Amino acid sequence: MVVLGGGFAGLHLIRRLERRLGPGEVELTLVDRQNYHLFTPLLYQVATGELPPHAVAYPLRDATAPAGFRFVEHAFNVKWLSDGERLRRHVLDTFEDAATESDPAKRRELLTFIIVGAGPVGVELASSLRDLMDHTLRRIYPTIDFRREVTIHLLDSADRVIQQMDVRLSRIAMKRLASQRVNVVLRTPVSEIAQNCVRTKDGVELRGRTIVWSGGVKANPLLEKVALPKAKDGRMLVDEFFRASGRDDVLALGDAAYFEHAGRPLPLLAQVAVLEAPAAARNIEALVRGEPLAPFVYKRKGDLVALGRRAAGAELAGLGGIVMGGLPAWTVWRANYLMQLLGARNRGTLLVEWVLSYFAGRLVANTP
Amino acid sequence: MVVLGGGFAGLHLIRRLERRLGPGEVELTLVDRQNYHLFTPLLYQVATGELPPHAVAYPLRDATAPAGFRFVEHAFNVKWLSDGERLRRHVLDTFEDAATESDPAKRRELLTFIIVGAGPVGVELASSLRDLMDHTLRRIYPTIDFRREVTIHLLDSADRVIQQMDVRLSRIAMKRLASQRVNVVLRTPVSEIAQNCVRTKDGVELRGRTIVWSGGVKANPLLEKVALPKAKDGRMLVDEFFRASGRDDVLALGDAAYFEHAGRPLPLLAQVAVLEAPAAARNIEALVRGEPLAPFVYKRKGDLVALGRRAAGAELAGLGGIVMGGLPAWTVWRANYLMQLLGARNRGTLLVEWVLSYFAGRLVANTP
Repeated sequence: MVVLGGGFAGLHLIRRLERRLGPGEVELTLVDRQNYHLFTPLLYQVATGELPPHAVAYPLRDATAPAGFRFVEHAFNVKWLSDGERLRRHVLDTFEDAATESDPAKRRELLTFIIVGAGPVGVELASSLRDLMDHTLRRIYPTIDFRREVTIHLLDSADRVIQQMDVRLSRIAMKRLASQRVNVVLRTPVSEIAQNCVRTKDGVELRGRTIVWSGGVKANPLLEKVALPKAKDGRMLVDEFFRASGRDDVLALGDAAYFEHAGRPLPLLAQVAVLEAPAAARNIEALVRGEPLAPFVYKRKGDLVALGRRAAGAELAGLGGIVMGGLPAWTVWRANYLMQLLGARNRGTLLVEWVLSYFAGRLVANTP
Repeated sequence: MVVLGGGFAGLHLIRRLERRLGPGEVELTLVDRQNYHLFTPLLYQVATGELPPHAVAYPLRDATAPAGFRFVEHAFNVKWLSDGERLRRHVLDTFEDAATESDPAKRRELLTFIIVGAGPVGVELASSLRDLMDHTLRRIYPTIDFRREVTIHLLDSADRVIQQMDVRLSRIAMKRLASQRVNVVLRTPVSEIAQNCVRTKDGVELRGRTIVWSGGVKANPLLEKVALPKAKDGRMLVDEFFRASGRDDVLALGDAAYFEHAGRPLPLLAQVAVLEAPAAARNIEALVRGEPLAPFVYKRKGDLVALGRRAAGAELAGLGGIVMGGLPAWTVWRANYLMQLLGARNRGTLLVEWVLSYFAGRLVANTP
């Protein structure tokens, strides 16, 4: 059996299979481009210096060693952790440049940050970026006027932020973003992203040294080479047992699978992958042993969005769709990620770095 | 006033001058290739995954912002923090390759580590590398026989390890290295380091995929361009007030200065730079105000060498040259570096990452 990708689906699947299958029952190979599982929901905190990279990288061999699995790495083009680090370095370089720039127009362009896409990643990044400025950079760059010279734009074509989530969460987020002086521009599709410049379909041109694309996740381009039926968005069509086109030898889950639920496909979310993995492991066990399969029943847990220091939004589907904001939601958010993150080593780092970043400031040494 | 380099001497000098000089009394510029001060004594722990890079990188602007100093960065070729990270990545890659290599000869070459130079860095690296294997890698690479297949060589031309330090510390280190199965080869000058191969002057050839050069520190090559009298080793000749060739407008300290004490130059050590900085700050204050200078009197504190989990060697000059080993020395060593490291943020990370690495294993996610 070959598991392609050590993301949320692949990693959680392997962990379940270890428990379910006996030694020697199958020979398992995990293929991934890196030796670590990247905890993507917290990647933006690497970009804004709240967490060091190693906090969100869980060694895949930690999960695969006990059962003696084989493990093959494969170089790949998209390296998400390096993206987070590159953005952090760029932001720090930008402030360094601005601090010694005397031309006011150039300073303003240097200090303009444009985030395209107001989904969860865009909203959390904008909010965290403002916190980085307000609580760490302001202190070490006394020559920059953070209120007058720095601008954060957050653009989206939708009519509300985080449109994937409950409308009450959008309202909580909008209020918080306004208080953080993030300039939210809605109903504004972007037509072009050029060097230091974003053009909207309305013909408006925004200039800024830092442009971040936080549009949605796409299916892995590797899927293009798989000769099996796929949906329009490139994901593999699966039945309620995760079988690709009903085949017993190819299963797909997580972002790779187009799983229909109540007439619509399940979204590309870590939450979905983590819920699917145990059900897929059960079915793989059944396939290996020639037992009957069980369909996967999706029960969403709700949504969380971080909104900087002591603020977040939470919608808890399990509690009748209750929605909360502020400190209670922030507590739920932090506790949730502490539990979700794998590995005692990573959890320890996460907790401590959060505390240190909160009280002693973010990570602003521009390490390579 | 221009301070060249934010190393131990430069950083500690700036911190002292901030306290001594009034605002506007001098205009200070710090020039460095990076925006952080690298705490080099702990760099080998980055190489062996005990600490994440950000723990040993202290943001220079933290020290310079309060007084509103100007700060200029300058690109430079030697990046020491990236060296530590590169070595860690290489070691992890090597084990990954060895785990899937079936040819026994190739496996042995992959798993042979050659450290050239048995000074403090070489000894501490060898010991820490063995700990990384014994307490973390052994657990996640069940297919590798760590006792039979892995070799660590530590080479030096001297007749004892850490010859810069007290001979009793050398004995403590030798005993510990032997118990950690580090193959120490003394009185053996190296004639050539080639790809995967070290040749000694005796004609012996050692093959290994990982070769580390831990020979001594040299004066910064930038000094070659300074048209002032220098010693043979490239350091600038200074008088007992740190004045280069008696000039009032050029002072040198730390690794850049050749400071004679009891007929011999002071060694290139962080300890020396940290002791020199306050005395130099006093003299700069005196020069600015036209007051008489005071000579620097060197009082060494002693030496410390880490020897892995719960072991170290310590010689305390202040306590009549008392020497200790084992857990007491280890405690002194850890406490010393916790105090020496600047910044609450860095100290918090250092303490917690040490605890996590000790109990939950080293950092083995091969992050970019």
